Order: sequence, then structure tokens, then C-alpha cells
Amino acid sequence: MAMAVNGRDVKQAFLNIYLRLKDDLLSDPAFDYTDDARAWIERMLDYNVPRGKLNRGISVVDSYKLLKEGIELGENEFFLSCALGWCIEWLQAYFLVLDDIVDDSHTRRGQPCWFRVPKVGLIATNDGTLLRNHIPRILKRYFRDKPYYVDLLDLFNEVEFQTASGQMLDLITTHEGEQDLSKYKLPVYNRIVQYKTAYYSFYLPVACALLMSGENLDNFVGVKNILVEMGTYFQVQDDYLDCFGDPEVIGKIGTDIEDFKCSWLVVQAIERANEDQMKILHENYGKKDAACVAKVKALYKELNLQTVFSEYESKSYEKLILNIEAEPSKAVQEVLKSFLHKIYKRQK
Amino acid sequence: MAMAVNGRDVKQAFLNIYLRLKDDLLSDPAFDYTDDARAWIERMLDYNVPRGKLNRGISVVDSYKLLKEGIELGENEFFLSCALGWCIEWLQAYFLVLDDIVDDSHTRRGQPCWFRVPKVGLIATNDGTLLRNHIPRILKRYFRDKPYYVDLLDLFNEVEFQTASGQMLDLITTHEGEQDLSKYKLPVYNRIVQYKTAYYSFYLPVACALLMSGENLDNFVGVKNILVEMGTYFQVQDDYLDCFGDPEVIGKIGTDIEDFKCSWLVVQAIERANEDQMKILHENYGKKDAACVAKVKALYKELNLQTVFSEYESKSYEKLILNIEAEPSKAVQEVLKSFLHKIYKRQK
Repeated sequence: MAMAVNGRDVKQAFLNIYLRLKDDLLSDPAFDYTDDARAWIERMLDYNVPRGKLNRGISVVDSYKLLKEGIELGENEFFLSCALGWCIEWLQAYFLVLDDIVDDSHTRRGQPCWFRVPKVGLIATNDGTLLRNHIPRILKRYFRDKPYYVDLLDLFNEVEFQTASGQMLDLITTHEGEQDLSKYKLPVYNRIVQYKTAYYSFYLPVACALLMSGENLDNFVGVKNILVEMGTYFQVQDDYLDCFGDPEVIGKIGTDIEDFKCSWLVVQAIERANEDQMKILHENYGKKDAACVAKVKALYKELNLQTVFSEYESKSYEKLILNIEAEPSKAVQEVLKSFLHKIYKRQK
Repeated sequence: MAMAVNGRDVKQAFLNIYLRLKDDLLSDPAFDYTDDARAWIERMLDYNVPRGKLNRGISVVDSYKLLKEGIELGENEFFLSCALGWCIEWLQAYFLVLDDIVDDSHTRRGQPCWFRVPKVGLIATNDGTLLRNHIPRILKRYFRDKPYYVDLLDLFNEVEFQTASGQMLDLITTHEGEQDLSKYKLPVYNRIVQYKTAYYSFYLPVACALLMSGENLDNFVGVKNILVEMGTYFQVQDDYLDCFGDPEVIGKIGTDIEDFKCSWLVVQAIERANEDQMKILHENYGKKDAACVAKVKALYKELNLQTVFSEYESKSYEKLILNIEAEPSKAVQEVLKSFLHKIYKRQK
């Protein structure tokens, strides 16, 4: 049976598959669940896995469709691409649950962070590792007999390693930046973003779709580089919107300035500031005080960072299009362009 | 080159291989380390990985030797069995770093828990996940070309899932026991121990050695069951020694009573207590007060739990020996007996 689903329908179909995967996990014979344990896991999954935008997960399905160049997906193929998409959503949930503990965050996706839910607390640490452990359970159940099974395991392992390493780099850098703001430099920033965000958010969905299509990932180093560039551009937008976006539209109030984040904006400010302006940064960056935040924002405007961002945005776009069009496969070009057009000039 | 190393020499050779694996990880091309990042990881590894008893790791080497039935290990085989042993030590380090956070523990292996080290704090959560991520890096580097590579990945994934699930069960059970002590029953206890401890401490080392020997683990379900039984017996000893062991000998002062643990002793006490004795338990179990602890210990003695333990110990031993001798392979029998004799009637 072929399936033609699009837009909202894809999202609904994708969400239905979450329910099936959850049922699988809750009846996994590798663990002898008690009723209480099953109830705990179900609540933890529902709270942390399906409530995001699901962009990463759905982009596996979208990419795989484009790689099939118009040939409709069979029901099982659709299911498998969704299952891989959900593995990425599970990975994301795992990172977010743990990062929120490390950062002592308060809200996530419009609700309290999981570790702040009564009776959860630091049990959330173990829940985070359980989320991570569900990925190989899903992979084994549905992909064990595929010729690309071992490559899938290697891929998820490598990307998880890179993401956790990027998170470490971010934590170390923020720690050092708190002593000496001038440590926030562009190469440092780029490295954090590449590892912490770009691999799992941009490369991983496409790599999953390529593996399902029978491709060898060693032949797609160029594609990987383009997706890492795109992920970097995406994070720069994120940092920009944190300060200059409309809270109504982005759905949260940014706190990068208060939190002493190694944000693209502060990196650009440090690069451009004279001595007096550096003094303003030193005195006001990383303070949980509205007046200090306002001074930093005023400095960003004085340094024309809004224009700097616009120029960065146009240049990144042009460069990405150029690199994409140099890719030999038209189908791969379509995948990359569809990613780019989803994020170019986004307001949220 | 053949290697004949034994006892202390094995431990020294095993420790030397830790240094090689650490160097590999610190120069892993999948992550672009800064000097600071490298220094952080090196310190984190040295603090958390090699300072335990290393029994689990070394038992991979010992088991593999026994499975080779007297044929000496070549240098590379010795190295590979050590590398798998270290993967188990890395796994253990990962669990301990995270469990100490969840349990708010103070000391581990005679030093402050990693998250209590100044400037570490909850960054330890991410360090825990990094430890876990190092395992597939080691496996990929040295086992990617082996016919059993995918089985190794599946094995580590399954055992990690079971251990994390067991930890969840322990956390939920302790939470429920705090409201209603009578929830601490033997089947509950056995299930926690099986998943949280036995799989990774007893089954995993032997399973690694079997895979290296070219065996299919599906043919060793009986061996798995014996090792899970042995792991349960080991944990019962641990619980017994926590209360009745000599702190000088076991190297720590037990706190299971104060911590409201679902210990084998309290399970046995609940099974045997009359109404008055249950009242004593309710009033004194889980209190951080020396007088309360003393009352619980006195009750354990009144209920003759030391004798109950001795009988359990003899019976377990007899049953295990019987099951071991029913195994068809002499070499496998030797592996299982060597495990059993390492732990039978241990005082620490």
C-alpha cells in the first residue's frame, strides 16, 4: 500500500507512530516491567519526547521522500523513516533532560523542566539515560535485519559522542568566559555549535535517510560539511532571536545575556568593541539584572549587530546555495535546499 | 608473541592498557579537542575509571583465557580482551558518576564523589554521558572489522538498558518503601538486583569473552541464568556486609539502614517480624540517627538474620555448583567456577 501524506497529515501520522514505539518499549521483553515502572516510563516519555516542534524527526521522512525522487513510499518504508525520525527526537529529549539539570533551567517547551516536576528531581538523571537507551531498542527491533543496521548504530553513537563533547566544550568555555570574557572568540563559538547542535540537528536526519536509501556515508562528506554550515547558521539565528526576536513569536523570553552565554552576538560585540565598550560588557554581561541586560542590548545596537547579522544571513545563504549546487546528485540538492528554505530568514 | 601473565602482573598489564585507551580517546578525530577540553577529560577519566577494584574488567581476560583451554593468548588477543574489560569499567564509571548524583552521595572509592569536586558540580552529569560514549569509540576502533562487532554493540546496548531500568526500579521502589515499608518483598528485591547489578557485573564479562571466542550468545541462556543467580548472591553478600561486615575490611561504613535501602536484610526482617517487631522497623528504619540504626541492627540479630544469611549462602553455593556442573562445556564450567570461588564467603 502506498501512502501519500503531506504537511499536517505527515505530522499526525508521525505522532501516531510515537504511540506504537512507546507501546513497544513498554512491553520490551529485555526488562520485566512492574505496573509502577511502566506508568513512570509512560509519563516520562509523554512529558519529554513528543512535545517539541518535531522538525528534526519529520525531516528524516521528508529527506527520504526526496531521495526517492517521486516514487511513493510504501507503508513499511514510511514507518521505518518515522521510526528513525523518532530516534532523533528521543536523542534530543535525552540531551534536553540532562542539559536542563546541568544548566539549572526552569522551563522547557512551555512546561517546567522534567527534573522540576514534583517527585522527579534528580531521578531525571536516570530518566535521561533511559531515553538514550531506548534508541538502540527501537533500532534493534526494526532494523536488525537491514544491511545498514551496523552503520545506523555507528552513526547514532558517533553523533551522540560529538554532541556530548560539544556540550562539554560549551560548559568549559562558559566557565572560562566568566573569568575572562575575551575568551569568547568566533572559532571557539563555531566549534561549540558544530558539535553541540549541527551534527545531531542537521547531519543526523539526512544521514539516516541516506542509509535507508542504501548509500555509504563515506561518499557524503561534502553533504555533511554543508549541513554543519547550515546548523551553524541556524544557531546564529537562534542567538540573534534570543535577543532581538519577538517573545510572542518565538514563545520564550531569551536569557543568553543574563546566563553569560557564549552567544554569536557577544562574540561579534567583543570583536568590534573599543575599550569603553568592552568596559560596558565586562560590567553588565552575565548579570541577572534588567538594567544590565538593557545596557548590553543598547551596546549591541550601537555596534550595529542587527546589520552585521543581516549581512551574515545573506552571505551564508549565498554560500550555502553555491555549495549545494556543486553537489552531483539532484535529489541530494533538493534535500539540502528543502532544509535551507525551512530556516532561511525564520522569525521563530 | 605469546604472553604469560598472572595475578598482579595481569592487573599491571591491564592498567597499562588503560593508558593506551585514554590516549586513543584524547586524540579521537571525531572531536576537535581544545587543550582545555583534553585536560578536563583526562582528569575526569583518571578520577573515575581506573580507581576501582577492576574485578569486572579483569574477569573478561580471565574468562577468555579459560575459554581458550590452555592455549596462551597472543599479544593482540590479550590486548583485545583487556579493551573489552575496560569497556565494562567505563560502563561502571558512568553508572557510578550518575548514581552518586541521584543518591546525593558523598564518597566513592575513598574519595569525594566526582560531582562534589570543586568546579565540577552538575557538569558531572555530562561527564557521565561522555564516559558512556567512550565505549562505542573503543569498540569501533578495535572491533569494527570483527565478525562479532554488531553483537558486541547489541550486547553493551542491552546490558546498559537493563542496568538503567534496574536503577529506575530501585528508585521507584525506595520511594514507595518510604511510604509503606511492607512493599519491600523478595521478588521486588530480586528483580532490582538482577537488572541493576547482575547483568553488567556478572553476565557482561563472560558474554564479552564468549563473543571473542566466536560463540553465539543465543546458545548460552543457561550460562546467563547462572551468572544472574551469582550476581544476586553477590548483592545479598554486599547487603549483609553493609550491616555486619568489618568496616576496616570492607573499606567503608555501611549506611543502608539510614538510607532506607531495599536491602536483603530488611526484606528478610519484614518477612519474619511480628507486629511489635514491625513497629520497631517502622519507627527506626531510614532514620539518620545512630540510636535508630542500633535498634534496627538489634532487631536483625533478634531475628537471627546472621544464621538466615549463612544458610542462604550455603544453599546458593550448592545450587550454583549443581547448575554449573550441568553445563555441557568443561571450559565454561571453569569460567563459572572461577567466578563463584572469587566471591564465595568473601569478607569484603
